Amino acid sequence: MTPLFRLLNIAAILDQALDFKEIAIDIDIMIQPENKLKQGWDVIVLAAAISAAIVTPLSIIFHLTRFSLLNLFNGLLVILFLVDIVVSSNTTFSLHGEIISDRKAITKKYLRGWFWPDLIAALPVGLLFFISGLLTAGGPLQLLRLNLLFKLPKASRTLSRTGGARVNPAILRLVLLVFWIFLAAHFISCSWILISGNPDGLDPVSLYIRSFYWTITTLTTIGYGDITPSGNIQTLFVVLIELIGAGMYGLIIGNIANLIANIDVAKSQYKEKLEKINTFLKYRNIPVSMQKKINNYYSYLWESRRGYDEFSVLQDLPDHLKVSVSLYLNKEIIEKVPIFQGAGEDFIKEIILNLTPVVFTPGDSIVKAGEVGFDMYFISKGSVDVMSADERIHYATLGSGQFFGEIALLLSMPRTATIKAREYCDLYRLDKDTFDRVLSRYPEFAETITAMAEKRSSEIQAASAGKKDQ
Amino acid sequence: MTPLFRLLNIAAILDQALDFKEIAIDIDIMIQPENKLKQGWDVIVLAAAISAAIVTPLSIIFHLTRFSLLNLFNGLLVILFLVDIVVSSNTTFSLHGEIISDRKAITKKYLRGWFWPDLIAALPVGLLFFISGLLTAGGPLQLLRLNLLFKLPKASRTLSRTGGARVNPAILRLVLLVFWIFLAAHFISCSWILISGNPDGLDPVSLYIRSFYWTITTLTTIGYGDITPSGNIQTLFVVLIELIGAGMYGLIIGNIANLIANIDVAKSQYKEKLEKINTFLKYRNIPVSMQKKINNYYSYLWESRRGYDEFSVLQDLPDHLKVSVSLYLNKEIIEKVPIFQGAGEDFIKEIILNLTPVVFTPGDSIVKAGEVGFDMYFISKGSVDVMSADERIHYATLGSGQFFGEIALLLSMPRTATIKAREYCDLYRLDKDTFDRVLSRYPEFAETITAMAEKRSSEIQAASAGKKDQ
Amino acid sequence: MTPLFRLLNIAAILDQALDFKEIAIDIDIMIQPENKLKQGWDVIVLAAAISAAIVTPLSIIFHLTRFSLLNLFNGLLVILFLVDIVVSSNTTFSLHGEIISDRKAITKKYLRGWFWPDLIAALPVGLLFFISGLLTAGGPLQLLRLNLLFKLPKASRTLSRTGGARVNPAILRLVLLVFWIFLAAHFISCSWILISGNPDGLDPVSLYIRSFYWTITTLTTIGYGDITPSGNIQTLFVVLIELIGAGMYGLIIGNIANLIANIDVAKSQYKEKLEKINTFLKYRNIPVSMQKKINNYYSYLWESRRGYDEFSVLQDLPDHLKVSVSLYLNKEIIEKVPIFQGAGEDFIKEIILNLTPVVFTPGDSIVKAGEVGFDMYFISKGSVDVMSADERIHYATLGSGQFFGEIALLLSMPRTATIKAREYCDLYRLDKDTFDRVLSRYPEFAETITAMAEKRSSEIQAASAGKKDQ
Amino acid sequence: MTPLFRLLNIAAILDQALDFKEIAIDIDIMIQPENKLKQGWDVIVLAAAISAAIVTPLSIIFHLTRFSLLNLFNGLLVILFLVDIVVSSNTTFSLHGEIISDRKAITKKYLRGWFWPDLIAALPVGLLFFISGLLTAGGPLQLLRLNLLFKLPKASRTLSRTGGARVNPAILRLVLLVFWIFLAAHFISCSWILISGNPDGLDPVSLYIRSFYWTITTLTTIGYGDITPSGNIQTLFVVLIELIGAGMYGLIIGNIANLIANIDVAKSQYKEKLEKINTFLKYRNIPVSMQKKINNYYSYLWESRRGYDEFSVLQDLPDHLKVSVSLYLNKEIIEKVPIFQGAGEDFIKEIILNLTPVVFTPGDSIVKAGEVGFDMYFISKGSVDVMSADERIHYATLGSGQFFGEIALLLSMPRTATIKAREYCDLYRLDKDTFDRVLSRYPEFAETITAMAEKRSSEIQAASAGKKDQ
Repeated sequence: MTPLFRLLNIAAILDQALDFKEIAIDIDIMIQPENKLKQGWDVIVLAAAISAAIVTPLSIIFHLTRFSLLNLFNGLLVILFLVDIVVSSNTTFSLHGEIISDRKAITKKYLRGWFWPDLIAALPVGLLFFISGLLTAGGPLQLLRLNLLFKLPKASRTLSRTGGARVNPAILRLVLLVFWIFLAAHFISCSWILISGNPDGLDPVSLYIRSFYWTITTLTTIGYGDITPSGNIQTLFVVLIELIGAGMYGLIIGNIANLIANIDVAKSQYKEKLEKINTFLKYRNIPVSMQKKINNYYSYLWESRRGYDEFSVLQDLPDHLKVSVSLYLNKEIIEKVPIFQGAGEDFIKEIILNLTPVVFTPGDSIVKAGEVGFDMYFISKGSVDVMSADERIHYATLGSGQFFGEIALLLSMPRTATIKAREYCDLYRLDKDTFDRVLSRYPEFAETITAMAEKRSSEIQAASAGKKDQ
Repeated sequence: MTPLFRLLNIAAILDQALDFKEIAIDIDIMIQPENKLKQGWDVIVLAAAISAAIVTPLSIIFHLTRFSLLNLFNGLLVILFLVDIVVSSNTTFSLHGEIISDRKAITKKYLRGWFWPDLIAALPVGLLFFISGLLTAGGPLQLLRLNLLFKLPKASRTLSRTGGARVNPAILRLVLLVFWIFLAAHFISCSWILISGNPDGLDPVSLYIRSFYWTITTLTTIGYGDITPSGNIQTLFVVLIELIGAGMYGLIIGNIANLIANIDVAKSQYKEKLEKINTFLKYRNIPVSMQKKINNYYSYLWESRRGYDEFSVLQDLPDHLKVSVSLYLNKEIIEKVPIFQGAGEDFIKEIILNLTPVVFTPGDSIVKAGEVGFDMYFISKGSVDVMSADERIHYATLGSGQFFGEIALLLSMPRTATIKAREYCDLYRLDKDTFDRVLSRYPEFAETITAMAEKRSSEIQAASAGKKDQ
Repeated sequence: MTPLFRLLNIAAILDQALDFKEIAIDIDIMIQPENKLKQGWDVIVLAAAISAAIVTPLSIIFHLTRFSLLNLFNGLLVILFLVDIVVSSNTTFSLHGEIISDRKAITKKYLRGWFWPDLIAALPVGLLFFISGLLTAGGPLQLLRLNLLFKLPKASRTLSRTGGARVNPAILRLVLLVFWIFLAAHFISCSWILISGNPDGLDPVSLYIRSFYWTITTLTTIGYGDITPSGNIQTLFVVLIELIGAGMYGLIIGNIANLIANIDVAKSQYKEKLEKINTFLKYRNIPVSMQKKINNYYSYLWESRRGYDEFSVLQDLPDHLKVSVSLYLNKEIIEKVPIFQGAGEDFIKEIILNLTPVVFTPGDSIVKAGEVGFDMYFISKGSVDVMSADERIHYATLGSGQFFGEIALLLSMPRTATIKAREYCDLYRLDKDTFDRVLSRYPEFAETITAMAEKRSSEIQAASAGKKDQ
Repeated sequence: MTPLFRLLNIAAILDQALDFKEIAIDIDIMIQPENKLKQGWDVIVLAAAISAAIVTPLSIIFHLTRFSLLNLFNGLLVILFLVDIVVSSNTTFSLHGEIISDRKAITKKYLRGWFWPDLIAALPVGLLFFISGLLTAGGPLQLLRLNLLFKLPKASRTLSRTGGARVNPAILRLVLLVFWIFLAAHFISCSWILISGNPDGLDPVSLYIRSFYWTITTLTTIGYGDITPSGNIQTLFVVLIELIGAGMYGLIIGNIANLIANIDVAKSQYKEKLEKINTFLKYRNIPVSMQKKINNYYSYLWESRRGYDEFSVLQDLPDHLKVSVSLYLNKEIIEKVPIFQGAGEDFIKEIILNLTPVVFTPGDSIVKAGEVGFDMYFISKGSVDVMSADERIHYATLGSGQFFGEIALLLSMPRTATIKAREYCDLYRLDKDTFDRVLSRYPEFAETITAMAEKRSSEIQAASAGKKDQ
């Protein structure tokens, strides 16, 4: 097997037969589907396929086949589509995240999939007509030139893939739906001109506009009735379009509301929940100030989380991925909290996987002096006040990246201070069981945190004593 | 920075340029968005925006630009919209329940949001035409006068916010949908007149009615066909309207049933549940009297609770808010039950958060004499009979705000009496674990309740002995 | 207060004024709403209200006011509606299952509810016209005669209540929807005749049919366009009808599919589940014979239970009702199982509330000889084979109402025999914990069942020995 | 009872009366409904019923009754339908999977069900008309010939049953819906010709096409209005069709979107989930490489499981069936894992019912050397690397059908090696509790697995020692 043949693959046979060898540039390096140039190429093919789908039917009904610009356009398309076959047969694909660059596997996949429509679309029917003098042959034969449309499905796949990465999927589906409906309406309009002719002797533009108008009037089931079929063939065509239109309309109506609802599922679910809560609050005559507080809490939750329940998403993942995502999400905490700095990866994982996110509203007591505590807290966002039991003496303010509650856990004594949220606070709670387990496994962590706890505990006692003396 | 400039903010520049300094009343005090006057002002702006949206297109198609009343109206609108810019740039806003009255923050927010549409809407295009003599200039230039419509989105937001506080949100959405459809139909009607002219030489009112009739006939997809387009421009316009109409119709159909279903979600869920239960009862041939009893139970639940599950709503709230709401909801119990009077807030919270609501139907035995009991009950609504074990001797009737079942718990003895519900009773159950925990923490409560329990226990024994003697 | 006045209530005043005293039959006994005669009366009023709704608009548009039969009909209606006021003000109502027969409460409820529409409907407008000579007065005044329509809402409530007891609620809603649409179409047809007149000079029947045809053509959004409005009033009327039609159509489309889906929710849920299971079975290539077995199991479940989960329905009920329903559902077991006969109600309740329903397919081993067992079983439906451990010796066949498995539980020995289901069996399982608890509380039950167990155990040993000897 | 009579059943009486005795072939052997020949016969009857439904109305409206081919066709149909009665009365049916071949039960079921429509359809009305000379009698009498349509419901049942076994049920429902709509449109078209006649004097084909065109234009609510009713009867007919059309359209629109959504429920649920996860990943700015890994994991889950949760399906089945299905699904494991070979069925069941499926992504650590382990694993798909604790020494690669993790469980020692997934792995986990329970019950299994564990443990130590020596 010559290397050239290996490169050009089955597409090469075709190329040789059609004498397009010159475009067979030696590209022995495989093309990655996520390569920017490849994606650009796909967009060009997409644009070509769509313009072919629009222009070809028009050229057939208005007998524009002699028109040299059109023949040039057709020639360009054939070249483009042939190159695309070469490109496609040299593009790797991925399976479960593994990139398959084995030429055999690629060829096999291509031959079983998009090769045949690609090939049909690349057949130079228009040019053959031009060469063979069949150019002016009318009717059914001309329809063969619609072979270009075989490129459309692949192009639409490009559209959905390209868009999929950037656009909201519900909006994308809506756009694709509209795109297909417009294309279908274009084909129906052209067919109607083909079948009904031009009884009023209109100029091409007016004729097409009237035909398009008739199509849309019928598809939307409006049916003014100013344009109606007269012969049997026209009547049967109209029946067909009406049936398609009815189905299409059902599809659209079933989809539009659905799609609009899905543009922001999280937001609409959030709104629904809030509505339910507010109805309850109103029904039970909860005072307006309390209603506002509750609404503020939910609006905070929404703005800081967009209604996503981190936990349920993570729970579905296997352990390996769960750790990666958790580490990433909490990387600020890990970077800020001094205990974690320089700690081993295993130790951090152990802690991270056992943190529970909790929210406190402004003024909430997080721990109360004198109570027995079973949790320590890391501050992810917001700030808290450390105060004496009677809330008269203000010891300190802790901010994001700091932690508290470890004294009671380590030294087995009641909470030494009351801690209140100053604003909305996102905290992570670490419960005593995990705390003790981790301490026993990682003695170096135990030492660090005990030293810190004792230092802080004595500080509080000093501050408390000092302030009492005042 | 002069105080005046600080006050008028960016709006001031505009005001000075347009010589409307007289309206720049010194309002250095910030406006609260929930101020009654501010809300009244918003309603005035809303009314102005809607009337502008209705009148301006009519004035364009019927060339009413010379009409002095209209110019007066336009002048008024410009003044109103300019004042609204001043008002808006002096209105505080709230973020997570905190009121932001910092001038810089307000200005920044306003400039990034509603300022530009507000400014465009306030441009005195109509007046400029009047002054510059362009008044009679026709066609496209006149469309510039639609700048007033830029005020509509903000106005519609006022509508939804004002309504939102009072009206069922599903009804509000329905009303807004209808409002927007009517406005759209109005614009379409005016456009149709602009494009199709007045071929039948109708008077303005008839012309508008016919155009509106054509619009609605098309949007509802009825399409009588008595008015159809003739030129290319008209035809293309109709195609556009038909496509909009089809989408709009899909939206409406998708929404109406949905909205109607959501007007009372709780009720429809309740009905569905009842329907399911009744089908089961019928299928299993449960006797009619039992079916009625079950239906009565559910109708009681509905009438006393509207299908809200208090528990699930409270469970989602953070502790601080949960306590506040629970205290409020049970404030009648707290006020009526003697033990709570004068008790500390902490003690009440402890009890309140641990009460479980239960319902008993008339005739149900709540406790049975001789059984070992693990709960005590507070009566929230309804009344119960205290009876001897054989139900022959009636000791007492307890009503809302009273409690029972504490004897068996305190004195570790079997229930001393049988207690039956006289009617539908809403009780709160306090289980033994919480009871014991609270007793140990609050010895003063232990004393009060023990004294009461002993007194009542001896009363029952006396009554029982007395009645047996009879 | 005279007794007569007390009886006739506020309706009496009206009666006296209108000199209809003769219908004030002394009915001091209160009418129960579920009385058969009362329900018959409601159906008569319903029929009268519907026929009034159909006839009155026709009589107005065709000027049939001189027609004596119509006046007789109107007179009859007035009498009927007046009597209905008397009847309604003497009908008790129920609140949470309690029948309220207090005259004051009834009067208050009636005056706040249906009294006013009842009163308006009963005003003898038609007769007044007849008497006052206004009979031939045309136009707007005649519309006053539509006062009879005020009876419709109440009548439709009768319809839904009467049907509700017998018909599937989804079908009933569908019927009500169709009924209201037909009535609306009738009113629209009549209004169209009133507004458009009779330009083609048709006979009344043809005129009405054409008008009704136009109405339906418009409401269904078909809009042939053979009948179109001409003046401003007609055009505005058509716009109104189109808007109503669009809304109505949205409602119908949103409802029909929904209603059809709800005609048999249980069945469609069952079908959906089965479909899902079968797709799974096919995808995993489960052998056809196994697929059939699984399908048979589900078809049995469906045919014997209609997809109802008895447990979840019962769980929602309060204890008192749960016991009643359980006792009823299991009354066959209670009647058949010898242990229950003559047992106390408390004992039966205790057992019944702790039974768990289980299904076995033909050939399933329920207990295996030699195993340690923790449950006994009551046979509710089907039959089982009692066999030796090697399944060679067949000891007995037990059928519905019998029980087994008690030997191992009572005598603390391994299962003495293997028991297999002969066909689909509905059993109730009683677990060891409940069994022991009940035994300790009810010693008489312990004795009975121990005696039975020992007798049966020795029988099996004898049989086993006997068969082995063979 | 003569055998012949017993055979032909009630159908025999009919046969004798009509002198069709010759077709009463002696088929004393019962026909099974799943017999291939029987199913072929059903398809023939289905085709006959559909062609009768299409041809008969056409023959009535175009007065084709003299046409000899039609009479032949009618004769054939009658014979076919009579034979079908004989066939049906000799076909067994199944009840809960039991095949009922008792002639009495079959006859009873048939007489209560399909016999009467079968009989009516088989009445030779057309032939009677031919014989009696009523052939040319017009109008209402001819409608009697529609008796053939009584065969349609049964035929449609054949259609749904035949398709049900092979086709996606959602697609089948869509096809059936389209089939019924086409048949309905055919009947409506024929009725319209019957009622409106042939005013334009068209040839039969054109007349039918126009009528069909009118029908579809009306049913899809397009309503061009080029064909409109003129007399009262025509108008009423149109009203009827419009009402049917409106309902039908609601049904279709309500169904199409629903059906399309249901063609692959599993896929659309999977897509929805993935969409949700991706929105979350994007919102939280998870790095693209991690996003891809997570997407790959879900795409693997989809491709290997199609979104089916094996567990939830099995959980619903009774024990007997659960074991059968589990054994089948895991038969590869059972065949490959050496411990299972030659083991008793009870032992295998015990293990199989306690396996939990788990998935590991490439690179995941399944067990870590030095940790205390509580599970052993069977590899169902994929391969794993056995490595030293520092992952430097590679001991072995285990593939599908092998197991690991048993050493730590058996010998109560920490994991001797680290095991990592090489690729996506489907494993089954067996937890320590089940493991210990099974070991104690099946000592022979304990010996086998202990021997294997010790051998492997020493191999690893040898390998580890050997590699360390290098």
